[in-house]
Amino acid sequence: MKYESVQQALEALDKLQQTQYAYNHAMGVLYLDATTAAPSDTWEGRGKTMEVLSQVIYDLTANPENGELLSYLEAHAGEMNPQRKREVEVLRKSYDQLHRIPVGEYVAYSVLLNDAQNVWQKAKNADDFATFAPFLEKIVDYNRKFAGYYHPEMKPYDALLNEYEEGLNMTTLDAFFAQLRQTIVPLLAKVRQAEPIDDSFLYRHYPAQVQRQFSDYLMEVMGLDRTHCGIAETEHPYTTNFSNKDVRITTHYYEDNLVSSMFSVIHEGGHALYELDADDCYNYTVLSGGISMGIHESQSRFYENIIGRSEAFVHAIFPKVKELFPEQLEGVDETMFYRAINKAEPSLIRTEADELTYALHIMVRYEIEKQLIAGTLEVKDVPAQWKKLYKEYLGVEVRNDRQGCLQDSHWSGGSIGYFPSYALGSAYGPQLLHKMEEDLGDIWTDVSKGNLSKVTGWLREHIHRYASFYKPGQLFENTCGKFDAKFYTDYLTEKYTKLYHL
Amino acid sequence: MKYESVQQALEALDKLQQTQYAYNHAMGVLYLDATTAAPSDTWEGRGKTMEVLSQVIYDLTANPENGELLSYLEAHAGEMNPQRKREVEVLRKSYDQLHRIPVGEYVAYSVLLNDAQNVWQKAKNADDFATFAPFLEKIVDYNRKFAGYYHPEMKPYDALLNEYEEGLNMTTLDAFFAQLRQTIVPLLAKVRQAEPIDDSFLYRHYPAQVQRQFSDYLMEVMGLDRTHCGIAETEHPYTTNFSNKDVRITTHYYEDNLVSSMFSVIHEGGHALYELDADDCYNYTVLSGGISMGIHESQSRFYENIIGRSEAFVHAIFPKVKELFPEQLEGVDETMFYRAINKAEPSLIRTEADELTYALHIMVRYEIEKQLIAGTLEVKDVPAQWKKLYKEYLGVEVRNDRQGCLQDSHWSGGSIGYFPSYALGSAYGPQLLHKMEEDLGDIWTDVSKGNLSKVTGWLREHIHRYASFYKPGQLFENTCGKFDAKFYTDYLTEKYTKLYHL
Repeated sequence: MKYESVQQALEALDKLQQTQYAYNHAMGVLYLDATTAAPSDTWEGRGKTMEVLSQVIYDLTANPENGELLSYLEAHAGEMNPQRKREVEVLRKSYDQLHRIPVGEYVAYSVLLNDAQNVWQKAKNADDFATFAPFLEKIVDYNRKFAGYYHPEMKPYDALLNEYEEGLNMTTLDAFFAQLRQTIVPLLAKVRQAEPIDDSFLYRHYPAQVQRQFSDYLMEVMGLDRTHCGIAETEHPYTTNFSNKDVRITTHYYEDNLVSSMFSVIHEGGHALYELDADDCYNYTVLSGGISMGIHESQSRFYENIIGRSEAFVHAIFPKVKELFPEQLEGVDETMFYRAINKAEPSLIRTEADELTYALHIMVRYEIEKQLIAGTLEVKDVPAQWKKLYKEYLGVEVRNDRQGCLQDSHWSGGSIGYFPSYALGSAYGPQLLHKMEEDLGDIWTDVSKGNLSKVTGWLREHIHRYASFYKPGQLFENTCGKFDAKFYTDYLTEKYTKLYHL
Repeated sequence: MKYESVQQALEALDKLQQTQYAYNHAMGVLYLDATTAAPSDTWEGRGKTMEVLSQVIYDLTANPENGELLSYLEAHAGEMNPQRKREVEVLRKSYDQLHRIPVGEYVAYSVLLNDAQNVWQKAKNADDFATFAPFLEKIVDYNRKFAGYYHPEMKPYDALLNEYEEGLNMTTLDAFFAQLRQTIVPLLAKVRQAEPIDDSFLYRHYPAQVQRQFSDYLMEVMGLDRTHCGIAETEHPYTTNFSNKDVRITTHYYEDNLVSSMFSVIHEGGHALYELDADDCYNYTVLSGGISMGIHESQSRFYENIIGRSEAFVHAIFPKVKELFPEQLEGVDETMFYRAINKAEPSLIRTEADELTYALHIMVRYEIEKQLIAGTLEVKDVPAQWKKLYKEYLGVEVRNDRQGCLQDSHWSGGSIGYFPSYALGSAYGPQLLHKMEEDLGDIWTDVSKGNLSKVTGWLREHIHRYASFYKPGQLFENTCGKFDAKFYTDYLTEKYTKLYHL
């Protein structure tokens, strides 16, 4: 036996995790720089660096010595505390998965993604899907191949879904989306017959400089500690975290749109709170960071929609909104503002979709991903399929790929199977709210005063603090019991019935 | 023999250099993030990452296999081209030096510097030298120890000077500074008797937002390609480069000061041009990047002072300056502006010093460093010594350490022996100008039109393109012949005599 004691093996485990952390941090900062501050034509050198580092990350995880270490610790599981056991479990999963990927493929894929990010950005700006297509083809091919490595026993797309939300599969999702469709389609039909809501004042001229101040204010209301949480500007907003003491959110300011950045900041702020509120004991281990995309989205969309688009929250922030944008919002009152930010209307851009139509955007991506991975749709046909499905699900015409299939950074980032977790996360929210209100009673009085401490405290206690200690299904069930999409459909029905006086 | 052919050994050499490049890039981006975008309390995690990466960087360089590789290539020097020979020479130097540093000390020092950066920043803000002192003590101790490792045959401070400018020593510097003092002290005395220049309009309210536009304009005039050169904001301006395709400059905006950032941008822009104009063949090798601090400063201060503070340059940019700041500069004409930005006056802050008194600021630091390393001055006595020398050399009272010995980031960054290269770089400039004018004839007509292409083209041809191919002394002599400080003292005498009508 290579290890003389459990203690010695655990020290090796710590060293491994700390080293992995360091490389992930370095890669994360390179990506952050690439998307926030780096000049446009600097990808070549970054690609070389990422090639070297991703090779090392691969070696660090796939190293056969880790197999020995994990086997030794698995054989001594009885002598380890629950956190240690979970660390071993998570490392075992990635070891087994990665061990099946040939190193050449792993490295080539990392390089591909670096190039693809750059190409996608330019393709999107130029509305030129053709230049991005060969990259997307390769990304799809790699993902299909990796799916086979990860879970040869699963259908490839199920294996990919499982990467973002352990246990999720097409059978569950098909049923879930069917249930949503049953509620959303008739509800949306009624909304479209109702008196339209005027939201034109949200699209007046909102200078980026003042929107930046607004972001600072929103982060303050959310209780985001700026000594540990930064904000930057990127094409596509995201959150990244290096530890629970170092989290960054990004946003994008459009000067003809007040709400795009506003809800990006609240959404990403929700991700950030999840990361910032993790217990310190998980730092520099594989358990640091949120457990899954679905749980992560449940937090971000909880803040964005359930809190951020509530009457109470609008009441709290409206005086500041008026102070920052007095001319743009002249004659607009709190109720008008609340109704405008909740206006339901089929549209082109997922990140700016209202709560009601949001899931329809996801369903388009879900169908396309399923077909791409199954090989029943070719990459060159994605734009046409996208247009067809948007017409069918949302009733809108997609006039260009920039506002169509090139709008999101997920595919260029290699994330196939990620989108469904947005819908799942959205659906977790109302069930969390239900439980929260059972536990706390009225939360809205505090929210209407701009005080989110009870809300965030409850989420910290039940979700945030655990980082990746529990599997997503287990974490959710520990808190709310079995997942039931009815909480979500009821929430949407109630909210939109009231909003539109249906 | 481990290597079967020179070709095989050269491939190993390439791999080594590319790997070193990747880690240096990662460390550089971590530092860039730390100083530009990172929230204030995020140093803990970054420290852990830098500890891991600097350990790897140490291993990469000090690895005994490199010793074998270098010895093999040195034995086959006849079969290598000049660039390869120079790569081996540079790697040999760092291998031999680093090989003498115990790995524990190297890593502990990297960690110390990460902490020190953070502590210095806070100490400076709080004007609290005492909290920084224990860190500076350790930094001085490490530097003294490292000096012994680097060049046991030299006096410790000579060994440190040699790190920043190969071949430089205290004997040379003592003579150089004495020569400067002979010119500057009487010249400054005459200036102080002359009619004072009014520069009060430079210290009106200059909003950061408009200064940012001014920076963009200055970068454009300098011909800095923004697809390869970014600008960010830091406490202390600096330039960093990852390749000749990825260079970043930083500045600091003070709203009560137009010239602080203006000349930071031009200064750092000069560093950036040196990096951007290097030949591609040096990328991802140890020869990438400028050769020495002295040569680097010769470029940055050439643009800052010889160009940026010239009548011709002021003529070129003044219409834009007036356009951006019409109210602040009402009633100010080109000549008033030119005279104001050249006003010579003993002051507290090195980076904002005029050309005439600048070297005196360096002399203070030089004396203190000499004494710290020699052990004849204790760290706790630095503030008092600083005040004493500022009084003696510049005739000014230093009222606090924030504007005194805490003003620069060099010591917290571990750079002892760096400052003298600023004075040397300043002195190289007028000799470069002399040679440039010999070669090109009149350069000032173009400069007065905002066209720096001839100037930059000449510097590219003689200096920039070579990156670290030549040693600094050799590079300078190839271009200008033997260094003679008289070009510098003559330049100062002529400029200030004319400016002040002496």
